[in-house]
Amino acid sequence: MIQTDILIIGAGPTGLFAVFEAGLLKLKCHLIDALPQAGGQCSELYPKKPIYDIPGFPEVLAGDLVDNLMEQIKPFQPGFTLGERAETIEKLEDGTFIVTTSKGTKHQAPIVAIAGGLGSFEPRKPQLENLEKYEDNGVAYMIKDPEVYRNKKVVIAGGGDSALDWSIFLADVASEVTLVHRRNEFRGALDSVEKVQHLKDIGKINLVTPGEIVGLQGEKKLESVIIRKTANAAEDVMLETDFFIPLFGLSPKLGPIADWGLEIEKNAIKVDNALDYQTNIPGIYAIGDVNTYPGKLKLILCGFHEATLMCQSAYQRIFPDKKYVMKYTTVGGVTGFDGSKKEAPKAVVKVIN
Amino acid sequence: MIQTDILIIGAGPTGLFAVFEAGLLKLKCHLIDALPQAGGQCSELYPKKPIYDIPGFPEVLAGDLVDNLMEQIKPFQPGFTLGERAETIEKLEDGTFIVTTSKGTKHQAPIVAIAGGLGSFEPRKPQLENLEKYEDNGVAYMIKDPEVYRNKKVVIAGGGDSALDWSIFLADVASEVTLVHRRNEFRGALDSVEKVQHLKDIGKINLVTPGEIVGLQGEKKLESVIIRKTANAAEDVMLETDFFIPLFGLSPKLGPIADWGLEIEKNAIKVDNALDYQTNIPGIYAIGDVNTYPGKLKLILCGFHEATLMCQSAYQRIFPDKKYVMKYTTVGGVTGFDGSKKEAPKAVVKVIN
Ligand SMILES: Cc1cc2nc3c(=O)[nH]c(=O)nc-3n(C[C@H](O)[C@H](O)[C@H](O)COP(=O)(O)OP(=O)(O)OC[C@H]3O[C@@H](n4cnc5c(N)ncnc54)[C@H](O)[C@@H]3O)c2cc1C
Ligand SMILES: Cc1cc2nc3c(=O)[nH]c(=O)nc-3n(C[C@H](O)[C@H](O)[C@H](O)COP(=O)(O)OP(=O)(O)OC[C@H]3O[C@@H](n4cnc5c(N)ncnc54)[C@H](O)[C@@H]3O)c2cc1C
Repeated sequence: MIQTDILIIGAGPTGLFAVFEAGLLKLKCHLIDALPQAGGQCSELYPKKPIYDIPGFPEVLAGDLVDNLMEQIKPFQPGFTLGERAETIEKLEDGTFIVTTSKGTKHQAPIVAIAGGLGSFEPRKPQLENLEKYEDNGVAYMIKDPEVYRNKKVVIAGGGDSALDWSIFLADVASEVTLVHRRNEFRGALDSVEKVQHLKDIGKINLVTPGEIVGLQGEKKLESVIIRKTANAAEDVMLETDFFIPLFGLSPKLGPIADWGLEIEKNAIKVDNALDYQTNIPGIYAIGDVNTYPGKLKLILCGFHEATLMCQSAYQRIFPDKKYVMKYTTVGGVTGFDGSKKEAPKAVVKVIN
Repeated sequence: MIQTDILIIGAGPTGLFAVFEAGLLKLKCHLIDALPQAGGQCSELYPKKPIYDIPGFPEVLAGDLVDNLMEQIKPFQPGFTLGERAETIEKLEDGTFIVTTSKGTKHQAPIVAIAGGLGSFEPRKPQLENLEKYEDNGVAYMIKDPEVYRNKKVVIAGGGDSALDWSIFLADVASEVTLVHRRNEFRGALDSVEKVQHLKDIGKINLVTPGEIVGLQGEKKLESVIIRKTANAAEDVMLETDFFIPLFGLSPKLGPIADWGLEIEKNAIKVDNALDYQTNIPGIYAIGDVNTYPGKLKLILCGFHEATLMCQSAYQRIFPDKKYVMKYTTVGGVTGFDGSKKEAPKAVVKVIN
């Protein structure tokens, strides 16, 4: 059982920054995310695109913003349960919550902060017989650990950024990369399209366009796929492979959280924005894109403020008798749970003569 | 008469970021600040100190944060009335407001956003006979335009960062710089203290410690000051000078805004935090350190969110019939009033063969 002070569901920018604000209050955090990496929409949907409305950044790539946040929260040593979806919540008699993931991992905390964004990212799956049989047995919808593919044969399907970028990345890792797409045209960053063209030209990526995977084969695990290139099924070809990775995009679904007894409005969780972003269940907060209130804007900078106020309220719930006196970071510095200490250079008092 | 869409009182980080959010909505802003420069507390009180809790910045100097914000809002060409305090407000029949400053400058706008922080920064003045006579006639409490002092004789009084830093700066501008301080010890950044010691050693700064200015003389404008070095007044010396600049610190005072009919609580302006940070007077908002509501935190990141929601509400007040559809900056880009355009590189659709 993983135990923490604030259990954060969703490791997007909002959840990440909550770790920092909690840390200033000496509260520890653990984050759960269905994706294999932190950063939410920023990492999954547009890591290489610039954002212009983060205060203090005339321009910042979404992926860099996430890197910066990870660096900022490092002193507070957050725990991560990645690649697992939070499924159920249970309230114990002592008032703490137990949250269990799709893989059965259990987490206990007195405070749950839902920072689930538009929902947990779920892959769009191809319509294929026996697909489930091969899931985690050769079929993957996200790449959690690229090392799994070292010196293996990989078939990637898709025509967007993810398919392009992972084909490029795995060309150096896997023994064979085949990229299959229904059309001849790919849609992505110019740079990525050109790189794939080059890798194809030098024989490091096998390209099959137009083409479609129409069948999966294998005893216990995936051993080969059937590729259809023309309308004539008789011309289908079989290709041996260790892995099939359809990258048709991930779409967010509020999913199981919708059944946790929280007040939901327009696919988002209603919160008390006049006070602390708490939901109708005391001890459960909702911050960032996942919440709604009058005038709500689904912007990153809003999640930052909501996370900050939420942490103050969480602190009061955990320590009802303590009075917290806020100290500016510039004045008090930042003391990490890892023993690190950042602080402003002190003024000196010195005679000049 | 200066006319604008949103008149912002206070050019601290909150007021500055409001310009950006207003700009995205195609609303123009003008800022009034009592200080000669933008940046509020960050610029005036701790420009060279690091802040650790700005989201996305593991560490940023307060002065750099202000520079970044100035860069970020540049496309929206804000107007500035600096070195003047907003004194009075008047509501016209057409619903717009007229705000007049200490120097009589008039500003008209349908929306007023008070981002006045802890108040307008007012200098601590020395107790000297005839002081007022020489104000703006040789006596200055802030340095608005250093060029005024070129090739002039300057006496600076004070023992903190401002006195040190301006002595250093003016040593290269003025014909003569005399730094007078009641004690032998100065209090400031080590670097500044050492620089002053060096400039004194090479004769570019005259140091008088311990010493105190006890008199001002001059027909129409300041011509000399009287310096007291010992308890024995008979030993007082006269020093010819063009300027006397006592830098004893600035302290913020809510000041005239307290009399504008706004609901005040604990020296701050009450706002409706459940909706849009509007005050009890429709059309007047209060954002950042200057406002108060249940759970309010006087932090920079909070002002950013408040400014953002305020701008949305201001837009609705100005255009009650328009429906604003928010577009992410990443998707829509940023189109400046100066014709500039920032946008994310577009994805390409391209055949690979
Ligand atoms: C193309 C694009 C451009 C954008 N441009 C801008 C912009 O310029 N400025 C701006 O401010 N915003 C922009 N946004 C929006 C911005 O990305 C979101 O506001 C921000 O990501 C919200 O952060 P969050 O942390 O609240 O949620 P998210 O980033 O959505 O992260 C939520 C995370 O929670 C996880 N999760 C949800 N439910 C569960 C569960 N049950 N179990 C486990 N994990 C779960 C999800 O997998 C996800 O990783 C843009 C969005 C897109 C798609
Ligand atoms: C030493 C120190 C360290 C700090 N460290 C941190 C930190 O680590 N993190 C953090 O988030 N915050 C920190 N703060 C607080 C932070 O600086 C403030 O929250 C922030 O400056 C508030 O911004 P603002 O724009 O609301 O107001 P301010 O920065 O106070 O700016 C308000 C401006 O309005 C002007 N003004 C007011 N009334 C009038 C008027 N009538 N006419 C004309 N002008 C007027 C003032 O002159 C001023 O320039 C610190 C503050 C100090 C002093």
